[in-house]
Amino acid sequence: MKLYGGVEAGGAKFNCVVATAPRDRPVAELRVPTTTPAETLPRVIEFFREYDLRALGVASFGPVDLRRESPTYGYITDTPKKGWQHTDFAGLFERTFAVPTGFDTDVNGSALAETLYGAAEGLSSVVYLTVGTGIGGGAVIDGRPVHGLIHPEMGHLPVPHHPRDAYRGCCIFHGDCLEGLASGPAIEGRWNRSPNSLPPDHEAWELEAYYLSRAICAVTYTISPERVVCGGGVMRQKQLFPLIRQKVSEMLHNYIRSELIMHHIEEFIVEPGLEDHSGVVGALELARRAEAGLRH
Amino acid sequence: MKLYGGVEAGGAKFNCVVATAPRDRPVAELRVPTTTPAETLPRVIEFFREYDLRALGVASFGPVDLRRESPTYGYITDTPKKGWQHTDFAGLFERTFAVPTGFDTDVNGSALAETLYGAAEGLSSVVYLTVGTGIGGGAVIDGRPVHGLIHPEMGHLPVPHHPRDAYRGCCIFHGDCLEGLASGPAIEGRWNRSPNSLPPDHEAWELEAYYLSRAICAVTYTISPERVVCGGGVMRQKQLFPLIRQKVSEMLHNYIRSELIMHHIEEFIVEPGLEDHSGVVGALELARRAEAGLRH
Repeated sequence: MKLYGGVEAGGAKFNCVVATAPRDRPVAELRVPTTTPAETLPRVIEFFREYDLRALGVASFGPVDLRRESPTYGYITDTPKKGWQHTDFAGLFERTFAVPTGFDTDVNGSALAETLYGAAEGLSSVVYLTVGTGIGGGAVIDGRPVHGLIHPEMGHLPVPHHPRDAYRGCCIFHGDCLEGLASGPAIEGRWNRSPNSLPPDHEAWELEAYYLSRAICAVTYTISPERVVCGGGVMRQKQLFPLIRQKVSEMLHNYIRSELIMHHIEEFIVEPGLEDHSGVVGALELARRAEAGLRH
Repeated sequence: MKLYGGVEAGGAKFNCVVATAPRDRPVAELRVPTTTPAETLPRVIEFFREYDLRALGVASFGPVDLRRESPTYGYITDTPKKGWQHTDFAGLFERTFAVPTGFDTDVNGSALAETLYGAAEGLSSVVYLTVGTGIGGGAVIDGRPVHGLIHPEMGHLPVPHHPRDAYRGCCIFHGDCLEGLASGPAIEGRWNRSPNSLPPDHEAWELEAYYLSRAICAVTYTISPERVVCGGGVMRQKQLFPLIRQKVSEMLHNYIRSELIMHHIEEFIVEPGLEDHSGVVGALELARRAEAGLRH
């Protein structure tokens, strides 16, 4: 039986799965640490060689090149992650397995998975935010992941620095952008403690919710999604959800006169429906779409 | 001969045109001040009655209801503009003239016009920003105006307040959002002078460019457009363009590794190709698309 292969290429590890369909229980899984391309990629390829693949999908950390007409289509481009700059992903898998290969960012993949099979099922305009070691955001509009000059990079949104927050931010590119102020390392840098060791009523979470709310407002004013799905390690702190919902309401200040935002904001800002699996399900969906000949 | 009708419904005036095609020289034009619906709308209707219309398009100030399945589709909703709340636009024209009627925001209309006939011709992902009495932004992705929960409302983006800017902002909803800090009235409020009376080398323009650049960065990180077209009264201050391009470059800080942004930013941030006509051309295009049965 022919199977779909999915690769969620993350900065810390690669999650690889083979399955009969994106939502089916995987036939096999492999997790390998993201060390160097020379070490990691052969292990990934060796895993998939055991199966009769019909198509492959890769949902990768970025930035990536998604422009079909580009000579570096399917590459990771200038990632800050050492050793991975200018690595050909889609091309490598396509040449190795000679099957249709889909490619997108990890967060666009997750947004797609949540839109089709998760917490935003049936909606046509959805943003997926992940908050962890880094911050990323992907978007689906009219059923398609958003591509443009490059692709969404919501982690680096400029946000107003909270007037009582003395922490300068840790983004090596921008200092106090969203990721610089609200990623896991930013929380740790600000409070000198691991985020997981901070109690749920610590003021850290109020401040975290402030920055994430600013970003959700920015996304609401640009893309106007029907739902914002928030995942990633930091969002496992469930006390963040009511704080963020309240702050987004206050910040929008009744300007967006939508029933959903004014009266049901708990349906606007939600947890992932696929828990930690949005990324791999998204990768499998990219495989399915590549096989169907959909360009993105 | 049957003609297309286009209405650019602005906060200050309605521009109405009839034409053989969106880019053809108009057969007739009418400008009427936006006073009250009871006064303005009959004059608009009277103007179009003279022509044999095949379709109509309305590009309106917002917020508007663009959800086809909504009972208030085609309405202006909770606009701060007195007397215009909950006014049925699309329905009124459709009932009066019994022709296909397209409807969208003025800025989505302008983005569409610039994408098809103007400064962003041939591109698939485009943002149109207008900076004047208010600030607005529309977007076209894959050839379609962006709709979602509502529609883009980029004027109200949260932006970092410049540390040396003591002006508190004039947005009645949000104080120091983009519109509160960078609209024409904000410039006037900050410097106690009409923007047009400020010399081109006045520090006001440097600060104006700072805020607009923050917004363009935010749009770049969310939508990732291939081009940002900047129009409206304030943008007639042409000295803003080089200032904005330089600041956007600095603020992105080589994070978005695109040839266009790194080496040709003058092609990324551009003036409108249709000058002051983006709105009416967009309205005519909405008419054309309504006739063709395109939903948006």
